[in-house]
Amino acid sequence: MPAPHDASKQNAIDMAAARAKTSINVSTLRDFLYNGAAQWQKRERVSNILVSDPLFNKSQRPFLTRKELYIRGQALTNRLYELAENHKWTPEDVQLAFGVVSDEVLSINLHNIAFEPVFLLQASPELLSQYGDLIAKRGILGCYLQTELGHGTNVGRLETTATYIPETQEFELHSPTLTSTKWWIGALGKTSTHGVVQAKLILPGGKDVGPHLFFVQLRDTETHQPLPGRILGDIGPKAMGAYAATDNGFARFTHVRIPKSHMLSKFAGVTDEGKYVTPPHAKLSYGGMLYIRSGMVTAAGWLGAKAATVAIRYATVRRQGTLDPASGLESQVITYPSLHARLLPILARAYVFIELGRALSRSFDALARDLSSGNTSQLAEMHVMTSGLKTLVTTASIQDVETARRSMGGHGYSAFAGLGKLYADYVPSATYEGENYVLDQQVLRAGLKTFNLIFSNPALASASPADKAKLATRLPGTSRYLRLLLDPSLCPPDCIIHPADDVVGTAISLLEWRAAALVKEAAQTQKDGTPDATATQRVAKAVTEAFVGGTREVRVVEKVYVLYLLTTLESALVDLLSFGLYVPPKTEAAGDPARGLRLAIGQFCKELLPEAIGLTDAFGYSDWDLDSALGVHDGRVYEALWARAQDEPLNQTEVTEAYEASIKPMMLRGRRAAGASAKL
Amino acid sequence: MPAPHDASKQNAIDMAAARAKTSINVSTLRDFLYNGAAQWQKRERVSNILVSDPLFNKSQRPFLTRKELYIRGQALTNRLYELAENHKWTPEDVQLAFGVVSDEVLSINLHNIAFEPVFLLQASPELLSQYGDLIAKRGILGCYLQTELGHGTNVGRLETTATYIPETQEFELHSPTLTSTKWWIGALGKTSTHGVVQAKLILPGGKDVGPHLFFVQLRDTETHQPLPGRILGDIGPKAMGAYAATDNGFARFTHVRIPKSHMLSKFAGVTDEGKYVTPPHAKLSYGGMLYIRSGMVTAAGWLGAKAATVAIRYATVRRQGTLDPASGLESQVITYPSLHARLLPILARAYVFIELGRALSRSFDALARDLSSGNTSQLAEMHVMTSGLKTLVTTASIQDVETARRSMGGHGYSAFAGLGKLYADYVPSATYEGENYVLDQQVLRAGLKTFNLIFSNPALASASPADKAKLATRLPGTSRYLRLLLDPSLCPPDCIIHPADDVVGTAISLLEWRAAALVKEAAQTQKDGTPDATATQRVAKAVTEAFVGGTREVRVVEKVYVLYLLTTLESALVDLLSFGLYVPPKTEAAGDPARGLRLAIGQFCKELLPEAIGLTDAFGYSDWDLDSALGVHDGRVYEALWARAQDEPLNQTEVTEAYEASIKPMMLRGRRAAGASAKL
Repeated sequence: MPAPHDASKQNAIDMAAARAKTSINVSTLRDFLYNGAAQWQKRERVSNILVSDPLFNKSQRPFLTRKELYIRGQALTNRLYELAENHKWTPEDVQLAFGVVSDEVLSINLHNIAFEPVFLLQASPELLSQYGDLIAKRGILGCYLQTELGHGTNVGRLETTATYIPETQEFELHSPTLTSTKWWIGALGKTSTHGVVQAKLILPGGKDVGPHLFFVQLRDTETHQPLPGRILGDIGPKAMGAYAATDNGFARFTHVRIPKSHMLSKFAGVTDEGKYVTPPHAKLSYGGMLYIRSGMVTAAGWLGAKAATVAIRYATVRRQGTLDPASGLESQVITYPSLHARLLPILARAYVFIELGRALSRSFDALARDLSSGNTSQLAEMHVMTSGLKTLVTTASIQDVETARRSMGGHGYSAFAGLGKLYADYVPSATYEGENYVLDQQVLRAGLKTFNLIFSNPALASASPADKAKLATRLPGTSRYLRLLLDPSLCPPDCIIHPADDVVGTAISLLEWRAAALVKEAAQTQKDGTPDATATQRVAKAVTEAFVGGTREVRVVEKVYVLYLLTTLESALVDLLSFGLYVPPKTEAAGDPARGLRLAIGQFCKELLPEAIGLTDAFGYSDWDLDSALGVHDGRVYEALWARAQDEPLNQTEVTEAYEASIKPMMLRGRRAAGASAKL
Repeated sequence: MPAPHDASKQNAIDMAAARAKTSINVSTLRDFLYNGAAQWQKRERVSNILVSDPLFNKSQRPFLTRKELYIRGQALTNRLYELAENHKWTPEDVQLAFGVVSDEVLSINLHNIAFEPVFLLQASPELLSQYGDLIAKRGILGCYLQTELGHGTNVGRLETTATYIPETQEFELHSPTLTSTKWWIGALGKTSTHGVVQAKLILPGGKDVGPHLFFVQLRDTETHQPLPGRILGDIGPKAMGAYAATDNGFARFTHVRIPKSHMLSKFAGVTDEGKYVTPPHAKLSYGGMLYIRSGMVTAAGWLGAKAATVAIRYATVRRQGTLDPASGLESQVITYPSLHARLLPILARAYVFIELGRALSRSFDALARDLSSGNTSQLAEMHVMTSGLKTLVTTASIQDVETARRSMGGHGYSAFAGLGKLYADYVPSATYEGENYVLDQQVLRAGLKTFNLIFSNPALASASPADKAKLATRLPGTSRYLRLLLDPSLCPPDCIIHPADDVVGTAISLLEWRAAALVKEAAQTQKDGTPDATATQRVAKAVTEAFVGGTREVRVVEKVYVLYLLTTLESALVDLLSFGLYVPPKTEAAGDPARGLRLAIGQFCKELLPEAIGLTDAFGYSDWDLDSALGVHDGRVYEALWARAQDEPLNQTEVTEAYEASIKPMMLRGRRAAGASAKL
């Protein structure tokens, strides 16, 4: 390996200089992001233990086959719990540890996040006492079998059947068709011993009462062989080599009998005779899904944080193009507006999503308290909120990771840059836990429902302004924008965004007016039967962005929040312009009304620029966390790329085995054809 | 494997019905796309030979390591040329064969497309006679070493030096720094014996006259060991496991001497004494780069064609959601506007880009004729055109492949869906052959130059309308939109798009007015020193889209072309609205002016829908070409997914080796902790 040279020294100098320029207190902000200094230190303790264990080393990971990655993933899981035992980690410590290894996509997550919560929430007390502790301690390993080869999001159309047999007090699970094969089930392929299966409950006489949950043993707990009547396996590799450590699997059931007690019957059941017992609080079972979706908001924030850290660090030390008069060197690429205008909004969204996720998890805790006392009044609002946010944050963060990767030019395409793996592992989030297009429909439906409830109410016409104002205050968070339509004295701000204005107030107001205009139009076109193909997405986005913009808790670092608002407005320009919500001030000559907004964004980016490294350092990621040659803390990116390339398996022999096999014969033929001798 | 069942039968029925519904003549259209029936049959002949050779089987490809994929790639290359010899293929046949195996990303492409053309174009007659035939017959294998660890697109900043030593009449190649290491060089890692190196030419006395090309032997032609003074290797895996068969490599040179005759000196040279000989026609050397970029337009079209074929076929047989009253089954998802409004524009872009590529290659042939006679007058126009188009088509097609993949829901994320690999292999096209942001700058610069040339000319003010009209006719293709600003009697169409209107004329006019407005504003903001961060991209896109829209040759299937124009307009709405180019007609009440456009798109989509399968069949892709379980010709997608999953290496043993190693110990610990016995 060649000795470090000037450029690498310069890398380190540039990074140190950028760090010195930051005016924010990095450790204070970091502690805040991690819920306080104590939590940060806890994470550090756990993280240090993992990092110093050779099993968790990532350097050879890019060279492993999928099978090796699966086997490694199981070894990591086993070791993590061993460490938890050795170090007497609390459940919270264990959760922190899983956060630290989140880029390993371990299949145990399906046990912890899908199988166990569903079981705990819906199992009968008897089943719970029999298996609850075994599941909690991972004495058995589970998965959650919902999706089938033929159907996913649309649960009502699942084909797997569970037929009740009163004679033996059993259910018979069966996969009647190829398309009823359970498919995509995480941890089913080669790992799980048990599972919770979604199947249509068929009563004696043949009545189908729709999908219910059944606890089923899949593999022998001693030999790990599939039990009779179960055909089990892995569904094969995922796109772009992603999610390799997770064994998404398939299962076909052939007349598999399970005891009646293995139905998860807390909210629905069957009498011994086979009479269906209607669930009293069926909606209570939705809680789990909402929990997963609200967790996805936080996760999207931290993912964006990783992408922003890597790309901003690389852009800080990479010098290209025009000469910087101060140093006589080429300019740091982060100084180019075309580059930092791409990266700083990613940073801003990361901050907003992290804080939004925190606010959401507080709302979720409140909801869980309500639900446990049978109060479902907030469920619908929470459902709309998490549906809209899940789509918003996953769509944005997928794009952000790719924008960050592409901002790094050619080297961004190296596996060692790290962002390719992040992208490939994250991109299915647009589809899982509710397909984004389907969730958008639910946001639209809820928006229209509230709109029609208010504005189709004949009493509204004669309501007094005071009554309307009272009604406005009662609107739930995701519908607050509708108050704008209740007060005829209100009108959209007609000022152009300008740094001297009340930027925050104007921006939030514009986002709300946009939501109101779009929902109003959607109500009209729905009545006319003429919605267009993209209306659903535009309405859902508008409603959700109005909600996020007005969420007080996301206002942590002022300039970051403003940049978030302005770039959100910029992405909403088509709506704003087409509804006449965004027009040039009367004093200005005709011109591009979007220009003021774009210049304001440029101005805020410029002001944020000296804080960029500090704001990313505050995310607290170590080099081990990032696993990126371009995102190294000390900035020595070229040395890191060089070092990592030396590990490539093709480099372990000077002459490739393809030489004798293929390259040499090809060249010899060529030399013959060219009339040259074999030896040149 | 379970027997086929109803859903699979239904798949086949749905596909056959869709095929029967098509009114276009598929084989006529296909022959047209392939430059005539004779060409299509030639491709078929070549393709059949490859498909029937077991080496070209792709079924195990998703399971191979990167090293195995490289070795396989070399074997395929060797075999392809063997087949060419055995079947006496013409050079054109060989080219067709490479088109057929384009998804193998073979490193020989770098010899054929980069190394050989550069050598042929720029080598001196002596060097050509010595090596030309060997290179053409692949008696030696080459690569093109331009990019370095520290610099890519910005060739002027490359650090590798070639110092002329008059005493020995040699050049000394040297890598003075770590960042000067040649990096990313395709086929360099483990394959090439020779290369053309970009290096700064240093004259005796130390004068640096900038980058020039040198022909250098890298490896021994007998042992394949690197020659002394060369450190060679592979740079490691690419993001998302992509481009695995290509050995992108690195090279460091330590005072490597090469004979003076090995400089590629057709356009520049050094006298024996070390005097620089100024190139008479330096620009002639740009031809190669333009050729590669114009080829990228066609390639983007065929890539989009693949994505559209797979996604439209799957959407045709996939049934989800609301019941279709005709059949009593769930509806085919392609009937949902939210889905076909995403897929049909991809199909439209594929047609437009394929034909655009064909038109461009004709322009390129004309240019090549000009250049060979020393006429460089069309070079600048061709440069702008290919720069703008390269950015436009790669940006669109990357997005289109991902949109198509995501439209397939969960299964789109399976490696067996095929589009993940297409995406990962294609996404670097945004960066290679000219980074898209950099190319956009060149389009902007050219646009401003032409604009200022015309409108800053004091003579213009006093020019007669006839003179201005004459000037307008002399504008080159990519600047034609500027004629709108030369005739004050012209104004933008004020009608909203409506199927009954002259949609094509209005759309092209709007695209041209948008280009004119943006360039005019850019000229102003450049003068004021206040451009915003996205101006460059918006101008380049506007200029290029106006050019494409007005290119007569892309008007092959009328409705497809119109859909292309309308969706292009939709993506341009921010510009159109902010410049007041797109306003509701005076007769219509206030409302969303974009609505008419969106409804028109919906209407055209609906009319195109029955032709979707025919239009994709016309691309002529076989199941082997597509390598997608979801894009199979007969529609039996679920059987295909099932069959392919059985090949997964994890499924080759019923119990994974991770069981004894990790899963069992973890469960035994868990059972102990839960107070259960080890045997449950």
